[in-house]
Amino acid sequence: MKKLKEIRMHLEENGIDLALVTTPDNVFYLSGFKSEPHERLLAVAVFRDAEPFIIAPKMEVPDVKAAGWTGESVGHEDTDDAWLIVEQAIRNRGITPSRIAIEKSHLNVERFERVKELYPEASFTGLDSKLNAMRNIKDETELEKLRKAAELADYAIGVGCREIAEGKTELEILTAIEFEMKKKGVSHMSFDTMVLSGKKTASPHGTPGDRKIRKGDFILFDLGVVWEGYCSDITRTVAFGEPTEEMRNIYETVKRAEQAAVDAVKPGVRAMDLDKVSRDVITEAGYGEYFTHRLGHGLGISVHEFPSLHGSNEMELQEGMVFTIEPGIYHPDITGVRIEDDVVVTANGVEVLTKFPKELQIIS
Amino acid sequence: MKKLKEIRMHLEENGIDLALVTTPDNVFYLSGFKSEPHERLLAVAVFRDAEPFIIAPKMEVPDVKAAGWTGESVGHEDTDDAWLIVEQAIRNRGITPSRIAIEKSHLNVERFERVKELYPEASFTGLDSKLNAMRNIKDETELEKLRKAAELADYAIGVGCREIAEGKTELEILTAIEFEMKKKGVSHMSFDTMVLSGKKTASPHGTPGDRKIRKGDFILFDLGVVWEGYCSDITRTVAFGEPTEEMRNIYETVKRAEQAAVDAVKPGVRAMDLDKVSRDVITEAGYGEYFTHRLGHGLGISVHEFPSLHGSNEMELQEGMVFTIEPGIYHPDITGVRIEDDVVVTANGVEVLTKFPKELQIIS
Repeated sequence: MKKLKEIRMHLEENGIDLALVTTPDNVFYLSGFKSEPHERLLAVAVFRDAEPFIIAPKMEVPDVKAAGWTGESVGHEDTDDAWLIVEQAIRNRGITPSRIAIEKSHLNVERFERVKELYPEASFTGLDSKLNAMRNIKDETELEKLRKAAELADYAIGVGCREIAEGKTELEILTAIEFEMKKKGVSHMSFDTMVLSGKKTASPHGTPGDRKIRKGDFILFDLGVVWEGYCSDITRTVAFGEPTEEMRNIYETVKRAEQAAVDAVKPGVRAMDLDKVSRDVITEAGYGEYFTHRLGHGLGISVHEFPSLHGSNEMELQEGMVFTIEPGIYHPDITGVRIEDDVVVTANGVEVLTKFPKELQIIS
Repeated sequence: MKKLKEIRMHLEENGIDLALVTTPDNVFYLSGFKSEPHERLLAVAVFRDAEPFIIAPKMEVPDVKAAGWTGESVGHEDTDDAWLIVEQAIRNRGITPSRIAIEKSHLNVERFERVKELYPEASFTGLDSKLNAMRNIKDETELEKLRKAAELADYAIGVGCREIAEGKTELEILTAIEFEMKKKGVSHMSFDTMVLSGKKTASPHGTPGDRKIRKGDFILFDLGVVWEGYCSDITRTVAFGEPTEEMRNIYETVKRAEQAAVDAVKPGVRAMDLDKVSRDVITEAGYGEYFTHRLGHGLGISVHEFPSLHGSNEMELQEGMVFTIEPGIYHPDITGVRIEDDVVVTANGVEVLTKFPKELQIIS
């Protein structure tokens, strides 16, 4: 597998004997097996000079294989000392690691102490930045899943629009959306679905409730799905009945700001510049103080991952990065509007994954 | 606050200067403030000889106070080095800790290395078992929240029963339940709601789907809510139309097994014995091989916490422990049945929090 090979090359280049990968998202990234093991041990062990293995709770070993892992799968039961089983699997490979890479931002002190007990002579280094760098750039297989997740998010927005009717509550619309998504085979949304109406749209982190929608409201949908382990995240704001001129003006400003950033995406552009392109449009229209958050965030196995698109991130975009672009204006006295797309940096520009129309939809 | 005092006593008794509590659930337990800070630092610092403080992302500091924390609240922004802010707050107390307690099963290596850098002379010890022991025993304030969470779970089962009708799918019933709970002010279920019908009830971890319910099915509901940070977890199995004699027999066996364990709860009984009381009823009825999991699990801020009620846990029950009792029979050719209550160990016996009837409900 390509990703395991890349880890092995990293071990080779840095004189590391063993890498222990313990974050569930990174175990999934390397093995295809997704699970939340809670306090039980789940890890992928990658060696410079031997075959990798995965250690998982015994009852999950069949699922590990079903997920496509073809290497060794070592099971452990609750009555076992899982680390002794790891140690045995390493010894079976004729290896006593003297330099070990761990996920320092994940592995807890208790486990670290166990590993140090097993290999008291070993030195340790972090694998975190290598894994972050790898996950930052999506390959074609990952992009396929992200495309499908985005397509389902588009569909969900369509469901939400169809559900809009006088007197319905935000929660009723939300429930209808999630029900349709479950029927489509989506077992989890990528975060709590947001349906906000009227002035509640002006709160970037509002909670959907019993408010009944009314003609003249903007209705803001922010939602996403998990598809084969990959997340989407879309926002659309639509009008229920005729909006006022100022609401239209806010909408069109956000739409231009969003499109400006989308159009500016290509390799070599800095994250901070992308944020600025979008923010400038909003500032020039006089709404700068109401755009209160960063432009966007990376998207993949996690709904918030690298890169972060904010005003002081000097990182240059690279082909294969995937992130959201989601400017907004939150005017407490008028309305809130946010428009959010998921985009991929391509060799020459951008691919937009979310395709629901951005022209203001007026639902009568 | 009583819990902070207990930590301070623990520090006193063990010659520890400072305890750093970093698990979000334990921060909530000690401060009343519930948050998922992701990669940002959120911690409670408790001292043997000084006032405690909480460090949180700056934007959350108002919420920390609103949650009832009256001590110092230190904020940090993304551009700050949060650990230097911690170090300053400790220095302001005139303290250079030489012995520090951490949550070894939570604090990651990266953070541990930062703390060691700040206090290179300090020695470290675990706070995990002390916190686990404290959380194991619920006080009256916690019990009030658990009672309310259980009451809402009872209500949810009632909703599910009312929704049962020929041709409805599992997902339709599930959606109706969750919608009603949202209207009741429940923002999160404590886990993915389960509605299974027909032979799907025979899978302890089945996934609700498009299956239409039919007369003659058993329908199994397994669900819970989070209320003011505390979880409930209930299972009821009901009949849609007349069940067969063997289905009735399985139901009555599980009911007797569940009640036998409930009746046996009192301080001093071992967890393993409680498991056995229930398992014996099922085994004597000839279904032993179909009861494939432990009797139950602790319940509180987390939906799975201490104690674990399984066949080799010699721990004696104590007043104030809260856990589920949930025997089941999963017969692949006939049906599955599980009945689950949430119970508290009282001075003399048991308080059952979940009150939905356990007599077989036959819905026509």
